[in-house]
Amino acid sequence: MQFELAFVLLFAVATAVAIVARYFKFPYTVALVVAGLVLGTAHAFEPPHLTKGLLFAVILPGLIFEAAFHVDFRKFWKNKLAIHALAIPGVVAAVALTALLLSPAVGGLSLVQGFAFIHALVFASVIVSTDPIAVVGLFKMLGVPKRLAVLVEGESLLNDGTAVVLFNLIVAVALGGEFTTSGAVLDFVKVAGVGALIGGLVGFAVSQVIERVEDAMVEITLTVIAAYGSFVVAENFHFSGVIATVVAGMMCGNWAANTGMSATTRVAVESFWEYLAFALNSIVFLLIGMEVQLNSLLDSWVPILLAYLAVLLGRALVVYGVSALLRLSSERVPWRWSAVLTWSGLRGAISMVLVLSLPEDFAHRELLVNMTFGVVVLSIIVQGLTMPPLLRRLGVTGQRDVYQEKYELARGRLGAVHAALGALESMRRSRDIPADVLTQLEKDYEQKANAAEQELSSLKQQTNRFHEEEHQEAVRRVLIIEKDSLLKAYQKGAIGKEAFEHLSTELDERLAQAKDAEAHVSLDDSSVDGTPVRT
Amino acid sequence: MQFELAFVLLFAVATAVAIVARYFKFPYTVALVVAGLVLGTAHAFEPPHLTKGLLFAVILPGLIFEAAFHVDFRKFWKNKLAIHALAIPGVVAAVALTALLLSPAVGGLSLVQGFAFIHALVFASVIVSTDPIAVVGLFKMLGVPKRLAVLVEGESLLNDGTAVVLFNLIVAVALGGEFTTSGAVLDFVKVAGVGALIGGLVGFAVSQVIERVEDAMVEITLTVIAAYGSFVVAENFHFSGVIATVVAGMMCGNWAANTGMSATTRVAVESFWEYLAFALNSIVFLLIGMEVQLNSLLDSWVPILLAYLAVLLGRALVVYGVSALLRLSSERVPWRWSAVLTWSGLRGAISMVLVLSLPEDFAHRELLVNMTFGVVVLSIIVQGLTMPPLLRRLGVTGQRDVYQEKYELARGRLGAVHAALGALESMRRSRDIPADVLTQLEKDYEQKANAAEQELSSLKQQTNRFHEEEHQEAVRRVLIIEKDSLLKAYQKGAIGKEAFEHLSTELDERLAQAKDAEAHVSLDDSSVDGTPVRT
Repeated sequence: MQFELAFVLLFAVATAVAIVARYFKFPYTVALVVAGLVLGTAHAFEPPHLTKGLLFAVILPGLIFEAAFHVDFRKFWKNKLAIHALAIPGVVAAVALTALLLSPAVGGLSLVQGFAFIHALVFASVIVSTDPIAVVGLFKMLGVPKRLAVLVEGESLLNDGTAVVLFNLIVAVALGGEFTTSGAVLDFVKVAGVGALIGGLVGFAVSQVIERVEDAMVEITLTVIAAYGSFVVAENFHFSGVIATVVAGMMCGNWAANTGMSATTRVAVESFWEYLAFALNSIVFLLIGMEVQLNSLLDSWVPILLAYLAVLLGRALVVYGVSALLRLSSERVPWRWSAVLTWSGLRGAISMVLVLSLPEDFAHRELLVNMTFGVVVLSIIVQGLTMPPLLRRLGVTGQRDVYQEKYELARGRLGAVHAALGALESMRRSRDIPADVLTQLEKDYEQKANAAEQELSSLKQQTNRFHEEEHQEAVRRVLIIEKDSLLKAYQKGAIGKEAFEHLSTELDERLAQAKDAEAHVSLDDSSVDGTPVRT
Repeated sequence: MQFELAFVLLFAVATAVAIVARYFKFPYTVALVVAGLVLGTAHAFEPPHLTKGLLFAVILPGLIFEAAFHVDFRKFWKNKLAIHALAIPGVVAAVALTALLLSPAVGGLSLVQGFAFIHALVFASVIVSTDPIAVVGLFKMLGVPKRLAVLVEGESLLNDGTAVVLFNLIVAVALGGEFTTSGAVLDFVKVAGVGALIGGLVGFAVSQVIERVEDAMVEITLTVIAAYGSFVVAENFHFSGVIATVVAGMMCGNWAANTGMSATTRVAVESFWEYLAFALNSIVFLLIGMEVQLNSLLDSWVPILLAYLAVLLGRALVVYGVSALLRLSSERVPWRWSAVLTWSGLRGAISMVLVLSLPEDFAHRELLVNMTFGVVVLSIIVQGLTMPPLLRRLGVTGQRDVYQEKYELARGRLGAVHAALGALESMRRSRDIPADVLTQLEKDYEQKANAAEQELSSLKQQTNRFHEEEHQEAVRRVLIIEKDSLLKAYQKGAIGKEAFEHLSTELDERLAQAKDAEAHVSLDDSSVDGTPVRT
């Protein structure tokens, strides 16, 4: 009952935070961390702790699977060089650089007695994996080029796996294991490779079943099995659970979902994972805030600040280095994007779970925990809040062309004018205000409406884009209304189960078609607003 | 990790069971229990135990909320007398009868030494609450009259609360508490009433927030808060959590969902709760099967069988008694329905959780647990499997004619198309989407509307039934609009009190006539598939 109460309270707090954050246009995840900090410091209530068990058993596989499920493999593959470079050698380099920067600063200057290179390495491998949820939301809001978002999401998806494998290798050495470069490379390849293989097998098996079954409830359950099953099997045999779940997720999302699910099922599966990810993220970021021991953290502010700077500098060097190398390939990344990539390397749940998994008697454990929590919270708050101005300053917010701007202006104006006309008409009907008063006003507004409409149609003559976009939007919205009306009729008993199922399958297929068409439009669209072609 | 593995295995087993059950057209819940029995006996793996914590904290509130959320309050209210009679005095009578039948049979015949009336009472209160999931699914599949389904679902929703309150009162007496009839009645009213009040308050608060928020993720979270929050708050203060959740669920489903949610949100919320209920049911029925100690159960087969007979007989007496009394009211229940009501009284999770919550040193605890598990499993397997032939034998399966099916398809399609046309019109008015885009869509939809209307009118030429039904519905809806406008005019002061009363009395009379006519039509209609008129 205690657990349940805490859970309900967490959800209630998350809801309040979501509402307030939306009102003030404040990033949701940042707001959650801040709310968690406040509640934790006030000891408002005893939350469930962010234990390794909770994170590994419940939260990580769900979040990773959802992210992988929604990756568009085609877009991912178009950027494979850049993503892999950032997520594999980039992670190794970032760990090495951060540790090199940090060990003289903390141990060498004797800020902390006995803090050696190996401890810096442990910290660096703990903190290296990125968690860009907070910025991905912002990217969407601010209309950042889609390819940049694919890079950030793809990197973060892959570097989780690399980071966990690297962390385990480094900790083994720190605990007195032998180290040979060839052994480490071999281990790395084995843990990651077999992890990927297990994920592939689970993903394949689940996809096979999904293709043979036609039942939304069972198919949702199958994706849950793919997410948690691949993770638990891989971890059980000491291979990489994270990588296994990434592979299984991509297979389910890009293969099973397209070939094995009816439209109805796909809508239900999407909706399930969207909500699960929302709920898990809400809880994890709130708990991150609440886990922080503000006093202990403030006591270590010097090493935390040094660590944060080392982490940022390490990431900047890696990102600019990789960007420079990519100029030699077909996947060029503009310099301005490198700045965004550097700054979007927020840290999150994985870092927390890794540091908490260190043995209780590990040297400098408390300091490492404080440094990790401190850097995670700093990165979320500082980078999360400064991302929008940075994007604007760099001009990578949707530099939609002049057409787009004019179009939105005209559309906004037209909407307002017509709302006004509607209000005038209802005043006329209700006789609140005498008719003769209204006539002049109505004339004015109708003129305005005409002007705006002419502007719109002339814009549409210049480019075909808007027309198609609007058409798709209208189609989709109408279809949702139809579906809802059907649902109501069924619940009222006006139509029976069979008729309902028949009709709603029809609708879902049309909805799926509409979504595909819309995606197609926006794909074409993305090359217009600021992608590689221009740089 | 252990927990996670068990969870993945449970889900995998449930998936396999779902696929096999569907293939052989075997009821899913029954198949789950059987699979659980086999796995449990084979000690295939260690499942998480069905503890009171797991059931109370996670499973019960979710299942109860979902059921209440989907209850159509208008239909529920039309059958209020029957449902309340079965679920409140009916439950008290069933407990008394079962205990009276059982205590001489088990204790009196000295099958079990020292098994007294009070122990029989404890058992009877444990087992009394019904859990018709298995049969409700069958009802839908077999097209049983909706009113019968409403009775079964409504009764089971309300009797859970009564049963839990009664159980607590009886156990307190068994443990040496004092008993006075007036005290018991007062306690009952207090625990149930304040529980309902708490549920109402939570439901009201959540609905208020839902009306002000427009975000599917947040609104799903709010329904989760309503479900678990109402339960946990009521239980925390020792009032009825079950009743609180029932009330909160009905409010969210019948009020907040209609007035506060957009179509998109409603679809997402429905989809979320549908899956949650599916997942919780899958787990609970599988675990019920696995919890059973087959050996120990077989050892007590005599008391279990006696208990099962006593339970069935007690229920039959109550159902037929209530049905006889209802003949004096407007909510007559045909005798054939009484047989179905009796036989659809399967038992489930609540009985298991209640018996497991008995103190470890409670007299005859092991026997009580065995009797409960035995009766639950017997009722699910025996009644679950024999329900379809019983329904067919009694002729209460929906022998819907071809007309009815075609009519529902056409009406469903027409409703959806008109909702779409309405949405298009409001898009046109609000200029969300420019008019030229909408023209083509509107044409398409108008064609669809014409097609569906032609289909409908040709159907109506073939039979007169639908015409009358639609006429009555239109009359009723227009009258309600009239009444509303009258009320508004009165409130604005446009018409005086006398005129208002005069006119509204007139209207009410016409409304009552329309209702009678409608009931008559739908009675005629339902008489096609076997209702009162014929008995």
